[in-house]
Amino acid sequence: MLKLDRGEKSAHPLEGKLLRDLILKNRSYRRFNQKYPIDLSTLRELVDLARHSPSGSNLQPLKYILSNVPGKNADIFSCLSWAGYLKDWPGPVEGERPTGYIIILGDTTIRKSLGVDPGIAAQSIMLGAVERGLGGCIIASIDKEKLRKDLQIADRYEISLALALGRPIELVQLEEVGPDNDIKYWRDEYNVHHVPKRALDDIILDI
Amino acid sequence: MLKLDRGEKSAHPLEGKLLRDLILKNRSYRRFNQKYPIDLSTLRELVDLARHSPSGSNLQPLKYILSNVPGKNADIFSCLSWAGYLKDWPGPVEGERPTGYIIILGDTTIRKSLGVDPGIAAQSIMLGAVERGLGGCIIASIDKEKLRKDLQIADRYEISLALALGRPIELVQLEEVGPDNDIKYWRDEYNVHHVPKRALDDIILDI
Repeated sequence: MLKLDRGEKSAHPLEGKLLRDLILKNRSYRRFNQKYPIDLSTLRELVDLARHSPSGSNLQPLKYILSNVPGKNADIFSCLSWAGYLKDWPGPVEGERPTGYIIILGDTTIRKSLGVDPGIAAQSIMLGAVERGLGGCIIASIDKEKLRKDLQIADRYEISLALALGRPIELVQLEEVGPDNDIKYWRDEYNVHHVPKRALDDIILDI
Repeated sequence: MLKLDRGEKSAHPLEGKLLRDLILKNRSYRRFNQKYPIDLSTLRELVDLARHSPSGSNLQPLKYILSNVPGKNADIFSCLSWAGYLKDWPGPVEGERPTGYIIILGDTTIRKSLGVDPGIAAQSIMLGAVERGLGGCIIASIDKEKLRKDLQIADRYEISLALALGRPIELVQLEEVGPDNDIKYWRDEYNVHHVPKRALDDIILDI
């Protein structure tokens, strides 16, 4: 049973620090050390985090496909689009590709509309990956028809998201959105990936 | 700049433990100590976690309304539906109601479809709440027309989710789904809230 720590202000000594640290480290990484394998047990641990995350009406319609072997990884990779704003960059080259994937599906026999479940599950998984020294990217731009065929995914499953995972080898720098409100990420001459974020006061409405 | 700890297996000494602990503590709580106030600064910190979480194409269309005062809290409360499976329970009684809310909106002038952004943001916020000794419930069942009117929310904003927050005063017990596959949560004679979760091997497809 999950007991509440009544009376204590927080169960964690570094109140508010650990999660923030994880969230800041959890950038969208798109280049990896392809020599760094991911165990199947690690992928299962990550799905177990999603399993214990909230689900609308507790229906739990999400199912998962795991991949950590080169052939299946290559099949999945061929169905994904990378970094839409980087027009000159078609995606990571061989040697810098993800070494694991978690595909999030919705079981339409349980629920037709997945609501916000895939986003909740994806965030739990990505934070768990970062905690394990991994990182990656939530990809919604998927050639679903090809992926369904390549992995022989039954029609009852809606393809929702692909989480690409690996040992990141790129640096990501957050910055504030400028006066032009341009949110497009970009790469500098050192291949550092810059990501403009809207300011806190611009996203909280004064109502 | 967010540097990667190359060579280290993980940046955290308790690898894989802290987030799992937070995720297990992050149950959907629906009864609170209404004497326990939530600072506006805490709500802002939680939105700041969401601000640094992934957003599709980095567009960041989400906006937030915060509430931590009795009148506004009551307005929001009157627009929410609670615990659909508990037919005899209309929601928390006065004295056990949430003391804070974060309403997640989508700015349709930035993006028409919010994709998985609200789920990602909600999970970051709820985990941050748990880390601070708070807890709550992600509520999608909202009388949106009434909420829009009560809070004078402009038409450009799509109402996505209400996150009800407070100091939880209920116990939640996770259990495995039984052979009947029934996922409905229920309360026992001691008012303990039981939540059946599907088994890990039932949600990972063997493809």
